[in-house]
Amino acid sequence: MSTDVYEELITEQKRVALLGSCGHVLGWDRETYMPRGGAEHRANQLSLLAGLGHQWGTSPRIGELLEQVEGTDLGDADGAKAVNVREARRQFDRATKMPQKLVEEISRVTSLAQQAWIDARKEADFSKFQPWLEQIVSLKRDEAQAVGYGDGIPYDALLDEFEPGTTAAEVTAAFTPLREELVKLVGGIRESGVQPNHEILTRTYPQTAQAEFGTKVAAAIGFDFDRGRLDVTTHPFCSGFGPGDCRLTTRYDEHHFPGAFFGTMHEAGHGIYEQGLDPDAFGTAMGSSRSLGIHESQSRMWENFVGRSRAFWNHFYSDAQSTFPDALGDTSLDDFYAAINDVRPSMIRVEADEVTYNLHIMLRFEIEQPLIAGDLQPADVPSVWNEKFEQFFGIVPKNDSEGCMQDIHWSAGLIGYFPTYALGNMYAAQFFNAAARELGDLHTMFAKGEFEPLKNWLNVNIHQRGQQYRAPRMAEVVAGETLSHEPLVEHLNSKFKPLYRLD
Amino acid sequence: MSTDVYEELITEQKRVALLGSCGHVLGWDRETYMPRGGAEHRANQLSLLAGLGHQWGTSPRIGELLEQVEGTDLGDADGAKAVNVREARRQFDRATKMPQKLVEEISRVTSLAQQAWIDARKEADFSKFQPWLEQIVSLKRDEAQAVGYGDGIPYDALLDEFEPGTTAAEVTAAFTPLREELVKLVGGIRESGVQPNHEILTRTYPQTAQAEFGTKVAAAIGFDFDRGRLDVTTHPFCSGFGPGDCRLTTRYDEHHFPGAFFGTMHEAGHGIYEQGLDPDAFGTAMGSSRSLGIHESQSRMWENFVGRSRAFWNHFYSDAQSTFPDALGDTSLDDFYAAINDVRPSMIRVEADEVTYNLHIMLRFEIEQPLIAGDLQPADVPSVWNEKFEQFFGIVPKNDSEGCMQDIHWSAGLIGYFPTYALGNMYAAQFFNAAARELGDLHTMFAKGEFEPLKNWLNVNIHQRGQQYRAPRMAEVVAGETLSHEPLVEHLNSKFKPLYRLD
Repeated sequence: MSTDVYEELITEQKRVALLGSCGHVLGWDRETYMPRGGAEHRANQLSLLAGLGHQWGTSPRIGELLEQVEGTDLGDADGAKAVNVREARRQFDRATKMPQKLVEEISRVTSLAQQAWIDARKEADFSKFQPWLEQIVSLKRDEAQAVGYGDGIPYDALLDEFEPGTTAAEVTAAFTPLREELVKLVGGIRESGVQPNHEILTRTYPQTAQAEFGTKVAAAIGFDFDRGRLDVTTHPFCSGFGPGDCRLTTRYDEHHFPGAFFGTMHEAGHGIYEQGLDPDAFGTAMGSSRSLGIHESQSRMWENFVGRSRAFWNHFYSDAQSTFPDALGDTSLDDFYAAINDVRPSMIRVEADEVTYNLHIMLRFEIEQPLIAGDLQPADVPSVWNEKFEQFFGIVPKNDSEGCMQDIHWSAGLIGYFPTYALGNMYAAQFFNAAARELGDLHTMFAKGEFEPLKNWLNVNIHQRGQQYRAPRMAEVVAGETLSHEPLVEHLNSKFKPLYRLD
Repeated sequence: MSTDVYEELITEQKRVALLGSCGHVLGWDRETYMPRGGAEHRANQLSLLAGLGHQWGTSPRIGELLEQVEGTDLGDADGAKAVNVREARRQFDRATKMPQKLVEEISRVTSLAQQAWIDARKEADFSKFQPWLEQIVSLKRDEAQAVGYGDGIPYDALLDEFEPGTTAAEVTAAFTPLREELVKLVGGIRESGVQPNHEILTRTYPQTAQAEFGTKVAAAIGFDFDRGRLDVTTHPFCSGFGPGDCRLTTRYDEHHFPGAFFGTMHEAGHGIYEQGLDPDAFGTAMGSSRSLGIHESQSRMWENFVGRSRAFWNHFYSDAQSTFPDALGDTSLDDFYAAINDVRPSMIRVEADEVTYNLHIMLRFEIEQPLIAGDLQPADVPSVWNEKFEQFFGIVPKNDSEGCMQDIHWSAGLIGYFPTYALGNMYAAQFFNAAARELGDLHTMFAKGEFEPLKNWLNVNIHQRGQQYRAPRMAEVVAGETLSHEPLVEHLNSKFKPLYRLD
């Protein structure tokens, strides 16, 4: 009896997820190939699917099934059954608290806002984006009220969507000491006088060669192109449609090597996570990625801990030299390695180095919180952004396109999302250390082009665990400690201090 | 009150169409960009959407709304309201008459049969396809019984799905005299001894240049690339997702110019129709294309009446020469024009010339009818095909892959579909004449690169009329005569007799 109820619950969940995955295809197409004239119809399509998914996901039948199954013995609390029910309950409660009209309105507005953002960003004209940002902030505040939150912090309700169970206070508790250490390291680097030759990376890297090289490397680290692809979009992303189909995107600049290359590594890291999920558990918690922070731990591990390591380039550099002979033919590995690890204040988050990146996140976190609390008006975002930017980095964006309009997130309604990037950096360091403790020296493997041990370890220890644990608990189980800034700080210090001849 | 009921009906219809259009995006992606590993999940997604669409389209509520609204005054019988209700009724009745089990069985069998067809065709082994054809014919006969038909002709029920209101008897009445005229013309051409230099078209035409040229020409004749795109697939098609978004596909062969070029013109013709539909009426009969025959009248008009005309190439040939200097630099327009209008019996329908193409259709029509009537067994299709082929073309296929297994249609359950191709040719001639009567000499315009007058005329007289009239009545209203073979015969004679120095 309890098994039948559980099976019916799982069937319902899979059906909702399958419908949701249709929306992912439409969302991917909107960013990659949709002609501009299709925007309005696409918004209607996505709104229909989102509304329907919400309706299915909040059907009274699921509520009944949950109540019935929760009254039975679900076995081990960390077992598949208990986990699937626990997370289904969380999802159901969150979804049922959201009025259907709000869900549809958010879908409709953000779909149109993204086109407005593209135009406004192209023209560096914030006034064209501002009315959309106002609508979105207002809708997200409505969402926070609808979903509810403890401790009087509406922002927690939004953060919880992306990082279940983690609060703004916990993020702040991790960010505060991290920021202190980063400021120290950045200061030391600035004062070191060491200046990598950044010009190396702005030579001519033909797009076709970049695409070929990026694809080859993504495949080498374990992204399976029989079950995915790589396309071009304005803002790179990874979208897992379901078993056997995961789409990565990147963007190419023929005079900026790191953008597409590390972007591809980053998205491939997300893709390897998606491809590592249990296909039979698709649509259930045990077959789903844990949280954005954990997702980001995977992308940033492959991008930074692997892709920006000396060992990685010991293996790939000669290949890079023959792929880009004009740009790299006469450049030493040492100079190249220093250039891709050039730490300096810069405008664009996605192009930031491994150290200052986290400061970009903290800045957004400090703007999003008062926006949602109602203490900051959307109209004032550009001036507050520029002020804080100067305070954090000592420089000021020359316009809002390289300032507060650089990211797609807000136009897509993704507020409460940014902190997960820095959480991901911290978790990445924790997991990387745990893998090394178990597998031995990973850098020795990278230098031989051996990435499978790390990939397999991640498959077993992270990917196949699905949503078995909440993120901080996962860190405890996998790495022996809850969320901590220390492994990341250690990693950064031990990598960058020698590079900049500090201490 | 009646208005409220009508509005609710329209809202339901638009909702079903919007959901269907999500499936179109997924179907397009499957053919264009989906990695092979995504096939199973995609099948699940499409099956979910199709099942849901069927469920919505046959909901008792629509039946109630129809009954209520049909009891009220719907105004002019050719007005939007009456038309939308009339066609909604047709769609609803057809859908509700189909037992769910039959729908599912057809979907299951055709999905497997298509794979069997691919394999059987590769091996030129009809015996591997025969059991599938038997099942499909049997299921389609069940479908005819379920849907119902007048005059004791089950085939009419199948034809009606693609060409509403047109019967096999009406098709035969048009095909019989058409065939007589075609046989005369083909005989004359054969005996003329004139042999265009076909080799011209098999020289090297680089793919990038073909894509550029095809895109330029498609845009020039009026396909709007802000509201559509052109991609590459194994089997070319056009898919209108809805207002503002219509996707064309083609396939390139660097040693066969006409394939991609006229394929692009053909699909662009379909696309111009889709783009010409009234966007505000999306999802209703007044915002939908009329029938496959009318759709094909548009694609084949742009492909043949425009794209294979001398006037068209008067305008475009120098451009073609500079785009393909190696292939066409030393070739005269006369020789090129003769080559693209080379008439000769050939095995493959999709590669046939404008004249013999119709004979390929008649042959299939003459096989499909006894198959569905039960007077021809699937096992006998190859021998009947070959017999008829010799009778029609004077040649015999060397195997069943270039014979009765060349088309995907039967394996996909599309029986009753083929006649619409030749109906399209006849309607194309009728509409083309009507446009010329109103606009003046179209060829003079083409020679100056002026395609907008024809496109605008089609927009107003065909596209924006949606499903206002059934196809033969549309011909009456637009061209002053019901379906007729004569304008097509006139067109073919006046074009090909001079080319082959006949009379």
